[in-house]
Amino acid sequence: MTSRTDAIELDRADPLAGFRDEFHIPDPDIVYLDGNSLGMTPKRTISRVLEVMAGEWASGLIGSWANWLDLPQRVGDRLAPLIGASPGEVVVHDSTTINLYQLVHAALALAPGRRVIAVDPGEFPTDRYVVQGIAEATGHVVREGFDQLDDVAVVVRSVVDYRNAAVVDVVAETARARAAGALVLWDLSHAAGVVAIDLHGAGAELAVGCTYKFLNGGPGSPAFSYVATHLQSRLTQPIWGWFAQAEQFAMGPTFTPRSDIARLLLGTPSILALTGAEEGVALSARAGIDAIAAKARALTAFGLQLCDELGLASSTPRDPTRRGGHVAVLHDRARHLVPALAERKVITDFREPDVVRIGCSPLTTRFIDVYVGITETATLAAELPSPAS
Amino acid sequence: MTSRTDAIELDRADPLAGFRDEFHIPDPDIVYLDGNSLGMTPKRTISRVLEVMAGEWASGLIGSWANWLDLPQRVGDRLAPLIGASPGEVVVHDSTTINLYQLVHAALALAPGRRVIAVDPGEFPTDRYVVQGIAEATGHVVREGFDQLDDVAVVVRSVVDYRNAAVVDVVAETARARAAGALVLWDLSHAAGVVAIDLHGAGAELAVGCTYKFLNGGPGSPAFSYVATHLQSRLTQPIWGWFAQAEQFAMGPTFTPRSDIARLLLGTPSILALTGAEEGVALSARAGIDAIAAKARALTAFGLQLCDELGLASSTPRDPTRRGGHVAVLHDRARHLVPALAERKVITDFREPDVVRIGCSPLTTRFIDVYVGITETATLAAELPSPAS
Repeated sequence: MTSRTDAIELDRADPLAGFRDEFHIPDPDIVYLDGNSLGMTPKRTISRVLEVMAGEWASGLIGSWANWLDLPQRVGDRLAPLIGASPGEVVVHDSTTINLYQLVHAALALAPGRRVIAVDPGEFPTDRYVVQGIAEATGHVVREGFDQLDDVAVVVRSVVDYRNAAVVDVVAETARARAAGALVLWDLSHAAGVVAIDLHGAGAELAVGCTYKFLNGGPGSPAFSYVATHLQSRLTQPIWGWFAQAEQFAMGPTFTPRSDIARLLLGTPSILALTGAEEGVALSARAGIDAIAAKARALTAFGLQLCDELGLASSTPRDPTRRGGHVAVLHDRARHLVPALAERKVITDFREPDVVRIGCSPLTTRFIDVYVGITETATLAAELPSPAS
Repeated sequence: MTSRTDAIELDRADPLAGFRDEFHIPDPDIVYLDGNSLGMTPKRTISRVLEVMAGEWASGLIGSWANWLDLPQRVGDRLAPLIGASPGEVVVHDSTTINLYQLVHAALALAPGRRVIAVDPGEFPTDRYVVQGIAEATGHVVREGFDQLDDVAVVVRSVVDYRNAAVVDVVAETARARAAGALVLWDLSHAAGVVAIDLHGAGAELAVGCTYKFLNGGPGSPAFSYVATHLQSRLTQPIWGWFAQAEQFAMGPTFTPRSDIARLLLGTPSILALTGAEEGVALSARAGIDAIAAKARALTAFGLQLCDELGLASSTPRDPTRRGGHVAVLHDRARHLVPALAERKVITDFREPDVVRIGCSPLTTRFIDVYVGITETATLAAELPSPAS
């Protein structure tokens, strides 16, 4: 049987263990296993946001915009190596909802003869809703699932499933879509900062993702958009804002978007929000995605092994190359387990209908956290009355 | 002739003078006359954002979302009395660009038989670009100007002109549009927090605006949307995100938007950005819009009087009820005057082709600032070589 000592040994041997010191640890007794919903707070974010407020906004006033104007691109460039993108291919702005909306429209414009948008019926809500809204507005048809790709303009698909952490084969699925004449818009929300994605290697052309989960950007920090360089100058989208304008401060009468990735920008971006994203991304970039992904595999392997030993069911894939950064524990009382765990300072989250997610965020989650989280889950699961009683 | 002593006397008698102490003053020698581009930093914003980072995000982690989920509506309710709206009619989210995009689409959906969107050719760029983009996507026609309202679905119009500060008669123009069967989407970006707007009194139904100018919300702080209560449940817009969903965490398959103002929400909002907006708005709410508007009229009257005495031309209206929060000084060397003023620590801004904007932000701008700004402008204007030389 795996013991607490095993967890402590694994933590001692962990090359990323020191990164936890970069984060604010509120209460040493809290076992935080929800970094895949909201990452912890980098200490440097607190000091840097303070510096931006007091040292840039308050002191430099309007003049500070000279330093802020290209912040969406600068944060994008820092994020790029984490997802296998090149400089100039990523921009950080707005939200996953908005960025998806822009890039689904962009994809449809690139495939004018095709009538179908393909999305998984179990996809994250915002992805499904955005696709439904666009289909209603444009007359496209939403097809559920990815088996049939005939007449598909764009596939909207998460790389990591938000419930069971299953990872799609991005290389194979990008190639299969391309062979069928379809674009893929990858949603990296549960992948960025935890799985080693090589967008270029996969020939991926469009992607979006979130910075407030494994990238630790802060609550509601802006999302990112990726567009392969060769597509950028041809890309069109329907929300025309002044931050995308080629000569922004000429304030000319006609919208003429920039030719680069910044043509996706919209209105004035929040500098406080971008600063949070920048610092979170910088920490992951410093750790390196290969080391991060290796630790995610080790943490989730450890969690699955504990599940097996303690008789907990899991829907998370056993193949480490097909697994993201959490372990989904299945239990018919999951809805009650999550608050009961929280009372014991073990923070997980519940997903309908029967999932306790044990999030493994490599820069902050220790093996001992996974150990306590899974063993407490097993203990409480045994104590809770069965649904039949 | 008006003297420095007159300015000092006016500051002494100013009932809002104490509000300047609520702001971080970086360098007492700086004369900041660009609060209409980027408001100054409330001290309380720095401490409150710090508290949100260290005390809520870092300490409460995911649990803090229970307090954050309705923050867009809470900040909206605080802003409502500043624009003559009722609680539940304003929500703070995303950017003016995005909010305009949503509400232009919403207006078009409410007027299915009409083909025209009316916008001023001199309107602020984002407004014009958003309208152009929508017209291109939907086949509507953009009409420049507001004289003819036949076949107009929606008028997109700023209450305060960003160049000369002219104020539109919102009551008369809303009524005229309604008589012609058109909706008006008012852009309050240069009006909110400086002019007393009574949206309800005017029968206004749709509005957007910005919080980083006179409302001092911080660089890129989120915008606001106003929808009159009676229209809310009928409002549709094309970006369907999970924060608008009636049962957000049920994560159901189909988008069913809330029936209230929050149906305009999209993706996860930035809590740091919203906190900045909240604190800025709270200060203006505490001062009260009538006192703020009275001071704006007094500051701009003082500035115009100085222009007259010093032989500077201005395009800003003389009627105080038709004037927003800045004085536009016209000069053929405006482009060179603005940086020359900045070298003397007088911060104004330039707008094409010949405008020096002297921003009068009532919570932070003193009469002495206006005095120094206008007199320095006159001095430098006399020293600069004329264009002919």
